Amino acid sequence: MNDSRNKKSPNRLRKARILVIEDSADHLLLIKNALQQSFTDVEAVIMTDEHTAIHYLEECMQTGLRLPQLILLDLYLPERENGWAFLTKVKNLNPEVGQIPVVVFSNSCNSEDIAESYDRGVASYVVKPMNFTEWTDYFQTLKEYWWETVLLPNTHSMY
Amino acid sequence: MNDSRNKKSPNRLRKARILVIEDSADHLLLIKNALQQSFTDVEAVIMTDEHTAIHYLEECMQTGLRLPQLILLDLYLPERENGWAFLTKVKNLNPEVGQIPVVVFSNSCNSEDIAESYDRGVASYVVKPMNFTEWTDYFQTLKEYWWETVLLPNTHSMY
Repeated sequence: MNDSRNKKSPNRLRKARILVIEDSADHLLLIKNALQQSFTDVEAVIMTDEHTAIHYLEECMQTGLRLPQLILLDLYLPERENGWAFLTKVKNLNPEVGQIPVVVFSNSCNSEDIAESYDRGVASYVVKPMNFTEWTDYFQTLKEYWWETVLLPNTHSMY
Repeated sequence: MNDSRNKKSPNRLRKARILVIEDSADHLLLIKNALQQSFTDVEAVIMTDEHTAIHYLEECMQTGLRLPQLILLDLYLPERENGWAFLTKVKNLNPEVGQIPVVVFSNSCNSEDIAESYDRGVASYVVKPMNFTEWTDYFQTLKEYWWETVLLPNTHSMY
């Protein structure tokens, strides 16, 4: 067993990378601010549609560029079919890419959207918060869970 | 959109159910205590091997018994092949069962175990903490993430 884990930061926050896929300029602003407050040492790669996000992941694989360790996906980009298309592609692109946990952020509380997202292999489904304070709270929880509790895949390729 | 979500408890903590699959009596004691402290209103169903866990889920489907909303899985039961076998079965048993997020709790920090777990569709991989205080901290984070931030599948069938 390779027990090199740092107790309060198993994923070594520094230099980690998150891929954010969001088409709303307003929500992107809130997400960027919340990321800056909570994930101070995490680089966020922002994409506004599923095609450029898949292209970016393909490019990472081809060039050896460091993959993101977590993907935040807006489901409606602007239709949910865009989010479904991203999920289908990302889970079949390459085993290393398929392992990256995807957290859906959506305005929708529709139970079909929730069920279909879990069916398509998302790690979790979060309804977008209502105001900036809540966004910050949510990202703080995300950090405590994904960076300080969970061991993410591809941690070895972070440096 | 059915926005009936309660801000700080989207999954309505009361009467929720977690399935815990753990073969170590010591760890089970720690988990039970941590659950009692953090998930006061959550019913934990405890199974000590993958066969009885799958049997329980099959029984839920056959009898209409309420499914768990989250599964905590010890990977080595006692071999990791037992954990892999559970993951293969649970993801193919039934769409509703396959949607339940599985959080692996393991002593292993082995990168192959982590990668293989994410390959097999786990929502996240957590290395078991070292002492009771840490177990309680981890379960507090789990509660804040899975019960107060995320929307879990099958929430409609909780009552």
